[in-house]
Formats: sequence, C-alpha cells, structure tokens
Amino acid sequence: MPRYKLTIEYDGTPFRGWQIQADGASVQGALTEAVRRFSGESVHVQGAGRTDAGVHATGQVAHIELSKVWKPDTVRDAMNAHLRPHPVAVLAVEEAADDFHARFSAIGRRYVYRIITRRADLALERDRAWKMPRPLDARAMQLGANRLIGRHDFTTFRAADCQALSPVKTLDRLEVESRDHGLGGAELLVHAAARSFLHHQVRSMVGTLVKVGEGVWTPEDVGAALEARERARCGPMAPSAGLYLAEVLY
Amino acid sequence: MPRYKLTIEYDGTPFRGWQIQADGASVQGALTEAVRRFSGESVHVQGAGRTDAGVHATGQVAHIELSKVWKPDTVRDAMNAHLRPHPVAVLAVEEAADDFHARFSAIGRRYVYRIITRRADLALERDRAWKMPRPLDARAMQLGANRLIGRHDFTTFRAADCQALSPVKTLDRLEVESRDHGLGGAELLVHAAARSFLHHQVRSMVGTLVKVGEGVWTPEDVGAALEARERARCGPMAPSAGLYLAEVLY
Repeated sequence: MPRYKLTIEYDGTPFRGWQIQADGASVQGALTEAVRRFSGESVHVQGAGRTDAGVHATGQVAHIELSKVWKPDTVRDAMNAHLRPHPVAVLAVEEAADDFHARFSAIGRRYVYRIITRRADLALERDRAWKMPRPLDARAMQLGANRLIGRHDFTTFRAADCQALSPVKTLDRLEVESRDHGLGGAELLVHAAARSFLHHQVRSMVGTLVKVGEGVWTPEDVGAALEARERARCGPMAPSAGLYLAEVLY
Repeated sequence: MPRYKLTIEYDGTPFRGWQIQADGASVQGALTEAVRRFSGESVHVQGAGRTDAGVHATGQVAHIELSKVWKPDTVRDAMNAHLRPHPVAVLAVEEAADDFHARFSAIGRRYVYRIITRRADLALERDRAWKMPRPLDARAMQLGANRLIGRHDFTTFRAADCQALSPVKTLDRLEVESRDHGLGGAELLVHAAARSFLHHQVRSMVGTLVKVGEGVWTPEDVGAALEARERARCGPMAPSAGLYLAEVLY
C-alpha cells in the first residue's frame, strides 16, 4: 500500500490536542476526516508527536497509508480542500518508503516557544505567544538553559502522566533568542531540539527559565532543580499557546 | 483639559473598521467604551487614520481629552483592562500638547502589506496575510513599485468614494521585501510610506504589483496605469486582511 509523509501546520487553539478524543475536536480527527472525504478510506493518521491542547505546529509530520495510488500534490490539495474551515493545513506531501514511520523513524524534533514581554494584552498575537508584563533577562535565561543542555535525567521537567520508559534524554539545543517586537515590546524565542522530549518537557523548561529571566531564580538554581530529579522543583509550566512544534527530522 | 496620545494595536478581523458605525463593532467604538468605563467620560477618540474593515494596526495613533488628570500609564492599564475581550491593545499613552491632533499633526504614515505564497490555506496566519497559491517575482514587483515612488496624481489607485481634496500625493517609499517563510512557503512584505494616502491606495497599489509578480503585467504597465489616471486601469484591490497600519510619525 502506498505510504505518504505529510508535513502539517496548525493553530492549536480550537483543538483538544493532536490526538483523537472521545469528545472535542482534535487535529488528528480533522485530518482523518479529510482523508475519508477525498478518498473514501478510513486511515490511521500517525503523527510524529502528540501536541497538547492549544499547542501549535509549523512542521508536524504524519504518515498515512492509502490503498489507491495518488499523486502526492493531489493528496495535499484534496486534503486541504476538505480540511476547511479547520485551521489545519497540509504544507507538503511526499511518497514514503513502506517502513517510514512518522514517530519511530524520527531522529530529531525541534520546538520553538514564543514569549512577548509588554504591559498590554496581545491583540494580533493572542493565543500565539505567552505574554509577560515585565522585561526578562534573556542573558540570564541562556545561562540557566546551558545547565540543561546535554544528556540528563529530566524527571524535574516531566509531566506526572508522562509515559516515556526513561526520564533520561539528550537535549541538543536550548537557545534563548531576543528580538525587538517594535512598539509591541520585546519577543523572546526559546529554541529546543532533541531526538525526543518527555511530556511537558519544553513548557516545564521554559517556565523554569522565565523564573531566571525575572530574577527570582539564578542560573545555578536551574542546575540544582535538574539534579534534584523532583517534579516539585520545577518552575511553573509555561502555557500551551506559546509552543510550536517546528520541525521533525528523519 | 489634559490631552493624551495613544498608540494602539488591533486585529481588524472582527471589526467593521476603525470608525464608529450605526451597526457593528468598530475599533473606535471599543476604545470610546473603554474610556467611558474607566473614567466615566464620553470622549471623542480621534484616530490618525480610518482603517477599513479587516485592516490591522500595530501602530495606530489616537488622541483623547479627559477632564481629570491621570498618569499616562494608568490610562493605558485601565483602558486595556476594559478593552477585554476585544482584540485591541493600548501599547503606550503619553501626555500631549493641547494642540496635538492625531490626524492633523501627523507628518508621515507607514503601512506594511503581508503576502504569503504557498498552495495550502493559512492556518496560523489566517486573516493576517493575503495567501497567493503561486510564487511571485519580487524583483519585478520592485521595478513596478519604483514607477510609483514620488509625487504623482494617484487617481488610478484611489477608491471611488475617496474624500481627499486632491489625488496628488507624494509616495516616499514602496519597497518589496522577500522572506523565507520556512516550510510554509515564501513571504513578501510591501512597505509603503507617505505623508498621507488616498482611500484604498495601498491595497490598490499592492494588487497592481501582484499582477507584475505573477508575470501578467510588466513593470512598465504600472507606470502606464499611473499615467492614465483612471480607476479602471488599476489592478484588483488586495484584500484587507494583509494590511497593517504600522506607524504614524509626528
């Protein structure tokens, strides 16, 4: 059966998350329905990762198997036509090898977390970033981030319900980029890359780094929290609306 | 009476435009109501320019007069508290001279028009940019734009209902910037700056330049359309959702 790799963008705001739920809209459900409408087939849309409610994607990847052979561009255009009005877009479709698996073949994942610091609520970027009322010290945040890079037991930054077999992960990149956001304050982008992440790991790390940016924690406190391997030592989790699954590498 | 200069961001999507209407929500109406709620005063919120339905602002300017003296930051925070849930944010408030007038004191206005070229509909940037299915030739568009820079009779690029006394305006800048939009295609930003613009002038110019970007018109055709001074010679008007009032200069 022909297998297709899909690269997908979505606005996570109206969804209960990636995964099909008994109640409420999901990204996976919207994609499954779009496949059914254009092809008549009920397929399993296998994603590279399950994003939580409110989390966005600019480069989620999924694979599907269809019994009929279609041109990849036809699959893309037909799915997009049937995805309306959901804020989900299939950016690209490629034919994939029979053993390609969106989740298990992935060798890397990259997330971006957006923070905008200013007094006023976000008007144009509502549900697209975490708004913090005061400036953050990006340099101190980077020093804290440096304590997390590498291979560690990330128990402190792991959700209670995380189903990963091991809390040990290798964090390849955790970079705090500071940008001018014009009259609308300042913007911080936190770039995180690893082969894979624990559940809530990025939002837990970002929430902890924000404590450092506020001057409440020192960069050393981040290292101590990591070493403690205790969920209670984690900073408050950053909200879902600022998080983007940006890329999956194979 | 103390006068205040407000710098304002808004998502134009849910509004009938800047100006208060007999029916339907307006940005001016939301701001007027926010002032009334925090101060008890019914004021005229005078904007620098009237944006159309669906047009956004990252730097609209308005002025108000209040009978009581408030700290500017208090005006900002109180207005923002009462603007919820409207997607309108007061970014900054400053005390202004008695003769400061948001519209008549302005010496320059800057707009940005966003175009994203790709096959798929916009998911994250819906209502934030004009989506075009095919790539555009930004270099040819810039050559066309160059024909419009300077002092000209812009009758071709003027709405039928435009109330300006003269169609002669001086366009200081019309620049086509090309950016990578990652997996999501390419992004073009058209930057337009002038002391003032005719009604629909930016959207008319952008729609015309897109004809050049598609290869349907030559850059010379833009010059000929300008010289014709005929509305019928204008390209199709670009949709409102891509337009941002970015800055007003005093």
